[in-house]
Order: sequence, then structure tokens, then C-alpha cells
Amino acid sequence: MKQRDVYLTEVGPRDGLQISKDFMPTEQKKAWIKAEFEAGVPIIEVCSFVPVKLIPQFSDAAEVLAYANLLPGLGVEVLVPNYKGCERAVAAGARVVTVPVSVSEAHSQSNVRKSTMEQVEEVKRMCELRDSLPAGKRFKVMGACSTAFGCTIQGAVPEADVVRAAVALQKAGVDEISLADTVGYANPAQIKSVFTAVRNAVGPDLLIEAHFHNTRGLGLANCLAAYEVGVRHFDSTLGGLGGCPYAPNASGNVVTEDLAFMFESMGVSTGIDLDKLVAVREMIRPQLPQTEFYGHLSVAGKPKNFAYAHA
Amino acid sequence: MKQRDVYLTEVGPRDGLQISKDFMPTEQKKAWIKAEFEAGVPIIEVCSFVPVKLIPQFSDAAEVLAYANLLPGLGVEVLVPNYKGCERAVAAGARVVTVPVSVSEAHSQSNVRKSTMEQVEEVKRMCELRDSLPAGKRFKVMGACSTAFGCTIQGAVPEADVVRAAVALQKAGVDEISLADTVGYANPAQIKSVFTAVRNAVGPDLLIEAHFHNTRGLGLANCLAAYEVGVRHFDSTLGGLGGCPYAPNASGNVVTEDLAFMFESMGVSTGIDLDKLVAVREMIRPQLPQTEFYGHLSVAGKPKNFAYAHA
Repeated sequence: MKQRDVYLTEVGPRDGLQISKDFMPTEQKKAWIKAEFEAGVPIIEVCSFVPVKLIPQFSDAAEVLAYANLLPGLGVEVLVPNYKGCERAVAAGARVVTVPVSVSEAHSQSNVRKSTMEQVEEVKRMCELRDSLPAGKRFKVMGACSTAFGCTIQGAVPEADVVRAAVALQKAGVDEISLADTVGYANPAQIKSVFTAVRNAVGPDLLIEAHFHNTRGLGLANCLAAYEVGVRHFDSTLGGLGGCPYAPNASGNVVTEDLAFMFESMGVSTGIDLDKLVAVREMIRPQLPQTEFYGHLSVAGKPKNFAYAHA
Repeated sequence: MKQRDVYLTEVGPRDGLQISKDFMPTEQKKAWIKAEFEAGVPIIEVCSFVPVKLIPQFSDAAEVLAYANLLPGLGVEVLVPNYKGCERAVAAGARVVTVPVSVSEAHSQSNVRKSTMEQVEEVKRMCELRDSLPAGKRFKVMGACSTAFGCTIQGAVPEADVVRAAVALQKAGVDEISLADTVGYANPAQIKSVFTAVRNAVGPDLLIEAHFHNTRGLGLANCLAAYEVGVRHFDSTLGGLGGCPYAPNASGNVVTEDLAFMFESMGVSTGIDLDKLVAVREMIRPQLPQTEFYGHLSVAGKPKNFAYAHA
């Protein structure tokens, strides 16, 4: 197994495809997941168990998940918006479910028609489902605090609200927490402050992951800030796919290949082969002709005599 | 005068236009400079005193400089590649000249046909010219250590070489030093290490500025890293104009509007009005139809209820 100092979770097959105008056939989804796995990406969020009539893109979620589960050593995650989705995901073999919980009440109501704490209750039921299973069958629950750094509806989101949501998720029994800058409002100073406050509140043992968008160009700077306060797990998407359906032309997630390049060039190992990852991008790009791809490494290439962190 | 925690130097009219295929008429250059001045940009590098037959874009350098010097309180800088250019610039009223000195010997030979230390000697002659003038007429000399973080010809550039060049420039008598990532090879860890090493070598009083390119997408992360080790002066270009003539499609400098947004959102005042700055971008863009513009803030807009650092 490769040495990794940080763990990148590719969320493109979920967060990227979720708003894509192009339907990607199941075989292409599988090929994408396999290619990123072979490029050394350690964890992939492969699909979402949402109602098919809401997002037809994920009509093949169970098949994609079953395929990903066969790749040896790959961490496989799926998104579930609610308990019903969690049941479907677990029945399909999900080992890690990510559940979004909007810290912003306004966003929570608009997104899942529940208050923040009602959604935490939904997460609690998933944790109870988990605990009802035999030890070998238990899945992990990740509570994803979305709009943790700001909200397009309510504007600023107080740090105390993020801490409250994170503590409530911990009490509900989650295995991991992520803090998501869903709409690209975060800045590096805020990142350091909020992650530190949440870490202080939930203690050192609960894994805390960063999920940042690059809407205002601060994606990598925000990842750097999170790294500097101890975060070692980062979501990102190939080509920066994804983004907010309410902000057309606003770029999506942090770009996986650029993030991996930043860390590797800093001497922080990702276990990822940058050339292979850029090749995956070139494979996927023609399959999503209506989707904008972002990123710099794929254009500029690696520096001359570039050395990986653990070459 | 506005309170500023950091100082952004807009180098677009020099670094951006230098490789642009579009000639910008003198009146448009003046309007650009005036508009950025009115948006609160404190310092602008307005032109380059290079041989006109090499870069016809700067045939109007003296007129542009004279105009910029009339804007009250604006810091005005010009680039000079050699002593002759410095003489021309000073005759035209230059108060600050930036002189590139390649830390990479290979780049230095290719760029100015001199070794690094021969170019430092050229800088020394400029400092002697400065000192020969009456006190009220003296200009400032900024030694710009280019390729300080890597070079497309030689690859890695040792930190010790950067320190040696910076110390040589200090001995030559420069007023300021900048460290430039000319080809976009730098990473945040390296930024912190090299700036700290140079600071330790030249002492705390010599102003050290950062000049970063965004070739591999790390521009803002690198600025953040430099800020965290005490740098308070940053070069950037509107729309990320500029870049390397040898790397087509590779994006240029750090984007001024995104950099200003990052700092303001962190509570670090730039004195810049973001809306006015984005308006300047929209004014300039149609004037450079063959030039690619980059940046995120101009697309996504400010966050809801955004507050400036010193509102």
C-alpha cells in the first residue's frame, strides 16, 4: 500500500454528475471509477441514492456501487439525502454513506424541507440502523455539514451554528464529519477558525473532512488552510466538475488533479499518479460535452524534473 | 488615505501587455491605469523600458509613465531590463524601477545574455546612478529575483541560489527585493521556506515582495503562504493577464480581483473596491480580444452580505 499523508476523495461521479446535463452511461461511470482507482485515488464517492425521478443520472446507483465495491482497497462512498436513501444504499452494499445536513436553516428547508436538527434526527436513525446490523455488516455514517461557511440564502453562517450542528451529529453517532463550503463562500482565515472550533468541540478522534468548492477561486488556498490546521481528508472532483445549480458559470469543486499536484509539490504524499489522473480527465471530457472542465495542471503540465513527495 | 493591511501592485499594464498580441492604444492604457487607481489599487507597474523594436507595445512608455505620475498618491513602477532602460526610465520620470535578475543561470543567459551576477552588476550601476542624483530626485531600485522557485530550462532552483542572489542585490544597494515565480513552479511549502530564508539573510528591513504566476493554479495558495510568513506586498494582474510566452494556454499572473477578494474576505484590507475593479476588467476585456482573461470573482460575484475587511 502506498504511503499517503493526505487522502483525496474523488466526488466527481456524484457531485460532478449530479448537475451535469449529460447522462453518462453506466459503463462509462464504471470506467471512470476504475481509471481513478488505477491512478491511485484512495476514495471515490461513486453515486447518490436520491429518488430517480429527481435525478435520473443516478438510476444506476446500485449497479455502479456494486462495481466499485469490487475494486480491491478502494474506499467507496455514496451520498444519501435521507433515511429511505440510506436503506436503499445499504441494501445495495454501501459501506460509507454521506448525509448532507445544512447548517443554514434556510438552505436546509429549501434543500430537504427539514430544519437542521430534523435532518440530524434523520442521521440518528441511520446510525441506529447501522448499530442494528451485525458487526461485520455495519456501514459508516458521515455527517456532512453543508453551507458551513456561508449560504446564498441567508448570507453569513455563524461559527457557533457549525459547532452546534457538528456536536449534534456526533451525539447522533456519526463516524465522520465533513465541513462543506457548498456555495464557495469560505476564506482561509475562516477555514482555520471553523475547523479548529469544531475540532475543539468534538475532540481529536472524530475524523473531519473538508469539502470545498472553487466558486470564487479560493479552493486550493482553502485546502491549504485546512491542511495547516490538521485536516488530512479532502473532497475534490476531476476537472473541477460540479458546482451550484443556482450559479451558472460558477466553477465547481476543487480540482482533483490540481489539489493532488499542490500536495505532491509540497512534499505531502497523495498516492496519486498525476499523469494517469490527467489521462482520466482526457478520457472523461469528451463524454460530457456540455460540461465545463476546469483546472491548470492539465494545461500546463508538471514542472520540469518534478519529483513526487515519496518518489 | 485608506487603511491597508496588504499592498497589491497591479502589473497588468506591463506583465499583461508584454506578451499580448493586441496593441493597446496609449489612451486606453491611461484609462486602464486611471480606472484601477480609482478602484483603490495602490501601486501599478505601468510599462517597460525595453527596446521598442523588441516589444512595440511599450513604444509609448514615457507618455504612459508621465500620465501615471500625475495620479495623486498612486505608487508608479516601471520595469527596466538593463542600465540603458533605467536611464531612459529615469529621464522619463520613473520613481521606482524593477529590474529582473534571473536566479537560474540558464534563464539569465537566455533572457538577458548575462550571468546572474553580471545582471546584479547592472543593478549596482543603477543604484550608483540613483545615488548620484540629488536627494529629492532619487528613484528606488527593486531587484526582482526571477525564476526563484524553478525554471523551465534548469528545473529546480536551489534555495541557496535565491538567498545568494538576494544578498548580492542587497549589497548592490537595492531598496526592495521581490521573489518571482516566473514560470509557475512554486508551491506553498517552498514559498514559506524560501521567503523565510531570504528574510533571515537580508534582515527585517528590506521590503520583500511576492510575484507569483498562476500557471498550475496555485497562485492564491502561494500568496496565502507568503502572507503567513509576513509578506505584505503582492504583484498580480487584472484577469490574470500575462504568463509565459513559451507556454501557450498556460494562465498568467495571479488574478488581482480574486487576490483582493481573498484578502478582504479574510479581514485583511487591500483598500480596493471589488465592484469597481471587476468593472475595470469588463472595460479592458473587449480591448484585448485575442487575450484570454481568467478569474472567478468576476463570474461568481461577491457572496451575499459580503463585508469588506474595514467596512
